[in-house]
Amino acid sequence: MAEAKVLSGAGLRGQVAGQTALSTVGQAGAGLTYRGYDVRELAADARFEEVAYLLLYGELPNQVQLDRYLEKLQGLRDLPPALKEVLERIPADTHPMDVMRTGCSMLGTLEPEVSFDQQHDSTDRLLAAFPAIMCYWYRFSHEGKRIDCVTDEVSIAGHFLKLLLDKTPSELHRKVMDVSLILYAEHEFNASTFTARVCASTLSDLFSCVTAAIGTLRGPLHGGANEAAMDMIEKFSSAEEATQGTLAMLARKDKIMGFGHAIYKDNDPRNEVIKGWSRKLADEVGDTVLFPVSEAIDKTMWEQKKLFPNADFYHASAYHFMGIPTKLFTPIFVCSRLTGWASHVFEQRANNRIIRPSAEYIGVEQRKFVPIEQR
Amino acid sequence: MAEAKVLSGAGLRGQVAGQTALSTVGQAGAGLTYRGYDVRELAADARFEEVAYLLLYGELPNQVQLDRYLEKLQGLRDLPPALKEVLERIPADTHPMDVMRTGCSMLGTLEPEVSFDQQHDSTDRLLAAFPAIMCYWYRFSHEGKRIDCVTDEVSIAGHFLKLLLDKTPSELHRKVMDVSLILYAEHEFNASTFTARVCASTLSDLFSCVTAAIGTLRGPLHGGANEAAMDMIEKFSSAEEATQGTLAMLARKDKIMGFGHAIYKDNDPRNEVIKGWSRKLADEVGDTVLFPVSEAIDKTMWEQKKLFPNADFYHASAYHFMGIPTKLFTPIFVCSRLTGWASHVFEQRANNRIIRPSAEYIGVEQRKFVPIEQR
Repeated sequence: MAEAKVLSGAGLRGQVAGQTALSTVGQAGAGLTYRGYDVRELAADARFEEVAYLLLYGELPNQVQLDRYLEKLQGLRDLPPALKEVLERIPADTHPMDVMRTGCSMLGTLEPEVSFDQQHDSTDRLLAAFPAIMCYWYRFSHEGKRIDCVTDEVSIAGHFLKLLLDKTPSELHRKVMDVSLILYAEHEFNASTFTARVCASTLSDLFSCVTAAIGTLRGPLHGGANEAAMDMIEKFSSAEEATQGTLAMLARKDKIMGFGHAIYKDNDPRNEVIKGWSRKLADEVGDTVLFPVSEAIDKTMWEQKKLFPNADFYHASAYHFMGIPTKLFTPIFVCSRLTGWASHVFEQRANNRIIRPSAEYIGVEQRKFVPIEQR
Repeated sequence: MAEAKVLSGAGLRGQVAGQTALSTVGQAGAGLTYRGYDVRELAADARFEEVAYLLLYGELPNQVQLDRYLEKLQGLRDLPPALKEVLERIPADTHPMDVMRTGCSMLGTLEPEVSFDQQHDSTDRLLAAFPAIMCYWYRFSHEGKRIDCVTDEVSIAGHFLKLLLDKTPSELHRKVMDVSLILYAEHEFNASTFTARVCASTLSDLFSCVTAAIGTLRGPLHGGANEAAMDMIEKFSSAEEATQGTLAMLARKDKIMGFGHAIYKDNDPRNEVIKGWSRKLADEVGDTVLFPVSEAIDKTMWEQKKLFPNADFYHASAYHFMGIPTKLFTPIFVCSRLTGWASHVFEQRANNRIIRPSAEYIGVEQRKFVPIEQR
């Protein structure tokens, strides 16, 4: 394609690939907004279901709308028997993102989105069912237990914690999980969202788009940074050791996860929020190691590299304090980001052209076929 | 992102989004090449497994390499019991592409690609297993039969036909299916392949990339054109009726599937190949309706619109003559295009940057959060 335009940056970096009314990322004076609202205000005063409603339905709900939405979601939590039987066949050592991907795909065979009129219902179904998909598999494969997928928790946050930990969560834990789900809900044209849009652009169904997005979020360059941060933080037993260890990692040019960002230049607006909640959780459990270690790494990275913690870094300790196994960190991201993915799918459908770029050919020139006897 | 570059075309049309050494599409004098070879020469004289080897391993195999490859693939055909049990739980009326997507994802939980060193083995496993994933589900859900997933057919083409139709295929049918798999194997940065590359760019695993690509190919704007063409062709019982019907559809401005192409301007190089084979099959079965109807539509589209049949149009009748149910046409595309998808994943991994474009924001301006009591 000699006439095609060659984009300057690899990975389409800085290139506008479409339009969105859902969020702004890294614009001056507003670190991250969802439909015009600063994510910090949403995290402070809204619940996750309000944010999901905002993204998926266009505006924040009033009390009547929210009550109806909460009730709808609560009624969609149980899993069909065939899906449970599939989850029981997934090994305990499977990457939990493969479980989410397969669970989503299987649900799409049992309760397909046959028409785009169903797009909101299919999304709400996934939103309600994802915590159970994750926890049913986790507890069956790790504890041999077939859990009840229905709880009396009102919020998705509380429901997830109860399914996973088998006890009624504290108000603090409900709130922190809620905040976490809000912070991860939407982030413009990141790789998984862009995948969902490319998939949607062929007019495929919602389950295909979300399944594709989960597979993309699974990659260590995208989701998984909070898991990697946790693995690093856990290696140190004191702030001093963490400072020395971080300096040594920097000297060895090791990759240190949870710092810096492709779009944000000075700070990640989500960090101050989750850091505050992680500190509260540390106080609650009487932690004297993980949080000080995290702060020591944070301080060293800033002093040495002027790199700031992103949303993932203090999520690691926050999740850990609530008793969440590290390998489930990225699946929680799925439960949240589904709202952003689906909203982008709706947008793509509303003004669609199939996403089909060109490639620069760098292969061998045309050549004559050689029959196998002559090779 | 005020500084970001706005691309001129929607859907990234005509924009170079990366490099490839795998194929050229629509370049002067060479309609479609795979690693430099004209697809028409490959379809005439190579078998599909040679083409798969060419794409996946870089060069056409010699006889020893081909024999070894055929033997490897034959040894990878059976499905693990857990995967069969999953397929048995997918309803008969499920979209067959949802079956392929779920089967691929489930296999990725049972036999994960843990390291990129396994990328060729994981691909070969999928290449060998896809016909059984499709046919095991189809025959279980439609006939109540648990089929043996192993056959003595040497080629993937013959193996698929035998699994599906429960009889040893003729040489002609083996050849036509082989040609079909060659024609659909690779096509540059089409939407499903681009999805696979975006997914791969986060360094996710091969099963995630292929699952995402299947979900994208599922959309009616991408795969499925041959199914839509079949539905149309079957409506007519004579050439004359087809001519009149096509004129009426054009007058009503109905969308007529299987004609024209986003990249090719004058003809689709794959059409002449599959049209020739479809004619041979028509002769074999003594058809006096479907092929004349197809030709009448073809002629009318050219006379009225100067639109040429693309690869999908004569695939419809060809598959039909071999006894393949229309709803399985697109899953066959998966069995073939897997080779292109995986080759693109390998390329992306070898020179990776995460694919993360920007968006033009068209939403509401920043606004103050309103507490729920005030909404």
